[in-house]
Amino acid sequence: MTTPQTLKGFRDFLPETMAIRNRVINTLKQVFESYGFAELQTPTLEYAEVLTGKYGAEAEKLMYLFKDQGGRDVGLKYDLTVPLARVMSQYPDLPKPFKRYQIQPAFRAENTQKSRYREFYQCDIDTVGTTSLYADAEILAVISDSLIALGFIDFTIRINSRKILFGITNSTSVLQSLDKLDKKSEAEVKQELVDKGLVADEISKIFAGIKSATPDTDLQQVINLAAKLGVDNIKFDPTLVRGLDYYTGTIFETVVTQPKVGSITGGGRYDNLIKTLGGPDLPAVGTTLGLDRICDVIAELNLWPDIKLTTTKVLVTIFSAELRDKSIELSIRLRQTGIGVELYPDDRIKLDKQLQYAARKKIPYVVILGPEEVAKDMVTLKNMSIGEQKQLPTDKLAASVS
Amino acid sequence: MTTPQTLKGFRDFLPETMAIRNRVINTLKQVFESYGFAELQTPTLEYAEVLTGKYGAEAEKLMYLFKDQGGRDVGLKYDLTVPLARVMSQYPDLPKPFKRYQIQPAFRAENTQKSRYREFYQCDIDTVGTTSLYADAEILAVISDSLIALGFIDFTIRINSRKILFGITNSTSVLQSLDKLDKKSEAEVKQELVDKGLVADEISKIFAGIKSATPDTDLQQVINLAAKLGVDNIKFDPTLVRGLDYYTGTIFETVVTQPKVGSITGGGRYDNLIKTLGGPDLPAVGTTLGLDRICDVIAELNLWPDIKLTTTKVLVTIFSAELRDKSIELSIRLRQTGIGVELYPDDRIKLDKQLQYAARKKIPYVVILGPEEVAKDMVTLKNMSIGEQKQLPTDKLAASVS
Repeated sequence: MTTPQTLKGFRDFLPETMAIRNRVINTLKQVFESYGFAELQTPTLEYAEVLTGKYGAEAEKLMYLFKDQGGRDVGLKYDLTVPLARVMSQYPDLPKPFKRYQIQPAFRAENTQKSRYREFYQCDIDTVGTTSLYADAEILAVISDSLIALGFIDFTIRINSRKILFGITNSTSVLQSLDKLDKKSEAEVKQELVDKGLVADEISKIFAGIKSATPDTDLQQVINLAAKLGVDNIKFDPTLVRGLDYYTGTIFETVVTQPKVGSITGGGRYDNLIKTLGGPDLPAVGTTLGLDRICDVIAELNLWPDIKLTTTKVLVTIFSAELRDKSIELSIRLRQTGIGVELYPDDRIKLDKQLQYAARKKIPYVVILGPEEVAKDMVTLKNMSIGEQKQLPTDKLAASVS
Repeated sequence: MTTPQTLKGFRDFLPETMAIRNRVINTLKQVFESYGFAELQTPTLEYAEVLTGKYGAEAEKLMYLFKDQGGRDVGLKYDLTVPLARVMSQYPDLPKPFKRYQIQPAFRAENTQKSRYREFYQCDIDTVGTTSLYADAEILAVISDSLIALGFIDFTIRINSRKILFGITNSTSVLQSLDKLDKKSEAEVKQELVDKGLVADEISKIFAGIKSATPDTDLQQVINLAAKLGVDNIKFDPTLVRGLDYYTGTIFETVVTQPKVGSITGGGRYDNLIKTLGGPDLPAVGTTLGLDRICDVIAELNLWPDIKLTTTKVLVTIFSAELRDKSIELSIRLRQTGIGVELYPDDRIKLDKQLQYAARKKIPYVVILGPEEVAKDMVTLKNMSIGEQKQLPTDKLAASVS
């Protein structure tokens, strides 16, 4: 290998990227925790037996499965739902409802494309152990509060219920076609149903069913409860199907129109899944948030122009070997006021190189402490964004950069 | 499989464990960032070629290596230093000195034992790209500030230099024996050297060398600079060797005596390693902090008795279906003041069960809103730790639980 590289679909997060990711994650955590969701983390590796036989052969082709040194069949986690099911089964004494969030990488050997990675971050919130519809509404409130906290103002939560869909058709194949109604025209979808062998009468019955559909009692209650929690942009959409077929009640997804992020969350109620996945028989409702997509969009569209890409506020330069200790002392004093301070580490490097270093690292302020400044108990402060430079008394420095 | 389980050496972090881990990690990040270290994350999987041929055959036996779906030889990361070397090579334009911290899992198929895991968290801080001894001293200051911030008061940083050791002996085998002087008696180590074939004269020369050793100019400067940065518990120890043999200058490790945590950090200067690992020719100095050990000790010795094991401050109970909306409204108002509030999700569950739930989740306060309270615009607030219960006006509630 000439230059060692990351694997395709795997990413390094360099410091400036981490600055955005950390702010997104901290923003989300704060919202989740404000509703009583607590963090869970599960291992990167699981017994293969825990992972396989859950989502079908297509999914398994994408799983990273291998034998470990002890000959055990193991695999990298494929999502956060299967580990949640295992956790519910392994720790039966966890108080219920168990409200957890989990933000960790999952692994799928997919064809890579924009904002799709082989190691990607899942961000899931779920309430396990209650059939109460308040839990459904609360997930919607958490989604809404999260997107608002991230600065996404224009979004709609599309909502439907599997029970309403099942009243229209029981055929998974038909549902898969209906799911395309947000991208294809009605005529195209009807043709697809013809191709699938349905007769005209069946097709018009299905479309009549969709057009006359209204929220059933449960779904209306979820919508009402969500409204009480401040969620006012919910839209009933009887054509919403959601890809995964383990949902049993409420289903929803969120489309962010401004900025143009697109579909960013998906979830619903899945009262049988935890049992199906090998866990105990517990009802659950939850959502996933597209963390990688959110981070990518914020970076690409420069949605947070004011974000500090470094936590360092000030670079204290070193004027000369003789004055190095003065700079050290100043850096300590500044740091003690709670400011992120970097001391340039090398007194053999010229001052202009030190300034270049600050510029490249996007450090907002640079302090220069030369013989003139030391004699007067002053410092020279350079504001790197506007290029302005001024002398000020040393004891005024902390306040000037805070 | 009857009950699905975690693999041996792999861990779930349930919410109460995460509360401690998150506080440890946030405390450390804050110290690292106050010195200008910025976060880096690298992928879980690397090309096997990046990982192998670096630390010898013994290490490779412990690596999780396998073939991915595309037939590529890949592996789970074994440490954070090899990925750092790759990053330095893959992004040659990173401003230098590059000061990064990295807190991520690494994977080793070791025999599991107390506080040793197969998926374990490494926490590394390193400064890459300068030979300045200030960088060495700064790492010591970060270690000292970190341990103080965690509440570890009694600790000593043992320090030595590979250059001083090389002045005494060039034999790795002899160094390995000397390294045991903190656990074995001098007589035992001398016997070990006899067994290794050294004659009496050689052995007494080595011990005379150790006993008369003093810090050389460079090491004295590191000690002086660290003192300027406020690190006053450094002890020169000419018997300190450190296991890994890639260090080229300063070496150090920290022993925490109160609480009895033991050796908790290890590091030093490694000016050739990044090149050896396939990166560019860049000097570096850094340390690793034993994050898992720190978290385990804090939990076992209950060092943070006041830590909140849940971020939820208040459980708002639901008295009856009729009064549910009153509880919902109250939960929203409280949440808006910035308090973590959980609303009990189910109006079909009796109040005493709701209180039990709060107790099991260690939620400090419970609010009860019955018909009597609603009529008077009051709430009943129960302090769960002391069991006390009182009525107070609704608008006084937020202040009472903050």
